Amino acid sequence: MDAAAELLQDLPKDFHYIFDTVHFILCIQGDRDDYGDSFGTATRTNPFASWMSAMMSCFAGGLLVSPLCGEPVLGAWNDNLKVLLATVLWFLLFYSPQDICYQVSKMFPVKMMMYITKGIYYPKKIYAGMKHASHVMPGNILAMVIIAVCKGNGSGMIKPVCRLVRGVWRPLSSEFLAPSVTTKYCIMCCLMLHLLPGPMTYVIVAGLLLSMKVGPLLGVPVDIFTPLERGVAPLVIGTNEQPAEKKSQ
Amino acid sequence: MDAAAELLQDLPKDFHYIFDTVHFILCIQGDRDDYGDSFGTATRTNPFASWMSAMMSCFAGGLLVSPLCGEPVLGAWNDNLKVLLATVLWFLLFYSPQDICYQVSKMFPVKMMMYITKGIYYPKKIYAGMKHASHVMPGNILAMVIIAVCKGNGSGMIKPVCRLVRGVWRPLSSEFLAPSVTTKYCIMCCLMLHLLPGPMTYVIVAGLLLSMKVGPLLGVPVDIFTPLERGVAPLVIGTNEQPAEKKSQ
Amino acid sequence: MDAAAELLQDLPKDFHYIFDTVHFILCIQGDRDDYGDSFGTATRTNPFASWMSAMMSCFAGGLLVSPLCGEPVLGAWNDNLKVLLATVLWFLLFYSPQDICYQVSKMFPVKMMMYITKGIYYPKKIYAGMKHASHVMPGNILAMVIIAVCKGNGSGMIKPVCRLVRGVWRPLSSEFLAPSVTTKYCIMCCLMLHLLPGPMTYVIVAGLLLSMKVGPLLGVPVDIFTPLERGVAPLVIGTNEQPAEKKSQ
Repeated sequence: MDAAAELLQDLPKDFHYIFDTVHFILCIQGDRDDYGDSFGTATRTNPFASWMSAMMSCFAGGLLVSPLCGEPVLGAWNDNLKVLLATVLWFLLFYSPQDICYQVSKMFPVKMMMYITKGIYYPKKIYAGMKHASHVMPGNILAMVIIAVCKGNGSGMIKPVCRLVRGVWRPLSSEFLAPSVTTKYCIMCCLMLHLLPGPMTYVIVAGLLLSMKVGPLLGVPVDIFTPLERGVAPLVIGTNEQPAEKKSQ
Repeated sequence: MDAAAELLQDLPKDFHYIFDTVHFILCIQGDRDDYGDSFGTATRTNPFASWMSAMMSCFAGGLLVSPLCGEPVLGAWNDNLKVLLATVLWFLLFYSPQDICYQVSKMFPVKMMMYITKGIYYPKKIYAGMKHASHVMPGNILAMVIIAVCKGNGSGMIKPVCRLVRGVWRPLSSEFLAPSVTTKYCIMCCLMLHLLPGPMTYVIVAGLLLSMKVGPLLGVPVDIFTPLERGVAPLVIGTNEQPAEKKSQ
Repeated sequence: MDAAAELLQDLPKDFHYIFDTVHFILCIQGDRDDYGDSFGTATRTNPFASWMSAMMSCFAGGLLVSPLCGEPVLGAWNDNLKVLLATVLWFLLFYSPQDICYQVSKMFPVKMMMYITKGIYYPKKIYAGMKHASHVMPGNILAMVIIAVCKGNGSGMIKPVCRLVRGVWRPLSSEFLAPSVTTKYCIMCCLMLHLLPGPMTYVIVAGLLLSMKVGPLLGVPVDIFTPLERGVAPLVIGTNEQPAEKKSQ
């Protein structure tokens, strides 16, 4: 177990450029997909906003965590080579002739390999976030969870700001109002690592996050939370109908 | 006078859990009242956003002051017990059966006692804000006033952000466009404590803030600013009609 | 060359109150012009929001750079005398009888002198931003450029926030979506100073920024970027028509 946990922790460190490349590609894909139909026009009219949004998505973890920890926000872009790498990938995925790069990046085998890589990257990011939080604010549990989520699902958390940079304002859509499955997995794994620290938990968490990322590609449902919420919520906070009845009385 | 000032400063320190409980209840009540008619549906559809908004309202002072002072934002939630206390109170006031907790918390005698407690809490918060500001940015008067207001009326200042977390965006309503009476009292008391430091001022300020909070419950008007503004503003900045006349010329 | 560069660097230091006065007047003018037709009503109904917006515009550089560098945001207002100076200028330009101060400040000779002063102020601000960035985040090129732009064109960058304080929300209009000529000059000059440091570059940069500010007053076009962008963009990122064609296929 120890060896497996060590391997899972060392892989993203030893091959960090591969892991970051995959992370950047998936973030930029997400950013591009978020444009919807306006992609062609918007990215050609406002290439600068499009680039800024992509950079914010790629480095979301650092950008979000820094102010929460009282650190320089722009420190997220400290590694010039990574910024350059993300810029090149953004250019290729957004403007390549015949859109070839984006099409290739969306092919099943490529997608599969990238999702596996990202799945292995998740636990490292969440764990790094937890360690950072307990270094800056020791004992602060809420901060630990929030920072772990920001590191794990940064590009999801920062999406409303990316949209704003691109001129789209949709306050009704955020991770607060509708937490994504990724966010819920991040919270769960963070709590598991906190309550039961040890190499075994790390391996289990890695397996969970890998399944979460790869499962949907193979048609396996991974949302273990919605059924639970549907069962528990009415007992704890009541159903939607309750207040409606009250009103009609 | 010295003994009275000392007592007023020691009370919120010695019984800080009582003062914090009352503070949290009033913040969560305010947060709940801000929902309006959508309360029943919104809090049952998005319990997470509702909890986040309540937590932000309860710890507004720290959350607002930290970035203004270059400190970790999440440090506001450093005390796990207080976060737990606020969470329990949020749950009771939002989801208790028959809505009993909220109804009790709104009964006159309960309200009265809580408003008196909060009234005594105000000067301590404002004074703590002033000391913090002069520690981080000595001599910066504007920073001192802003931080004192953020500590005194944090839940009012943070309201637009809480709303945003709950998916409500109302940019036309903020403490900048329509400063509340509480904000104005905070500014006035902060300036009094700055210009005339001493135990006597502290006692007077405590009396003023207590009256501000309890007065309205007894039907006593406490807005001493609006008449003053109505009298002074036209002489200093002109009336609304002036520019209209100008235009018609 | 050395003497010229030294003179250009020393001038804004030795006469910093003059340079700041001019800077404040131009910022407040910009803030006022941004009101449009609602100026008369809005500033008389919400003088506090109007003052806050003006203060944020005047001290935009510091307010924006502090969080990006992990420093206290309110430190931007550390100099009470400068805050007082900006407040007096705001009052004079917004509420003076017969609007005389604003009218005078818009007269050609006054404008000319102020624009020249501001033109000389630009390189100092950009250079100071670069030095600050490399002090806090050494080697971080993106941070250097962003901070230089925030120092050089802070009032332009902060405009959406100033508008929000005044109750106006226009997410489609920002320096990200439509970078102003000033922003583009700031980026260019920052990169010149970075790639070719030395007194000669400083003098050239000062000349460029002075021309950028004074040129339009004399009817000289200074936007050297738009033609370049129109020529290069279609080759690099494709034209707007491309995706439209694709769709129709």
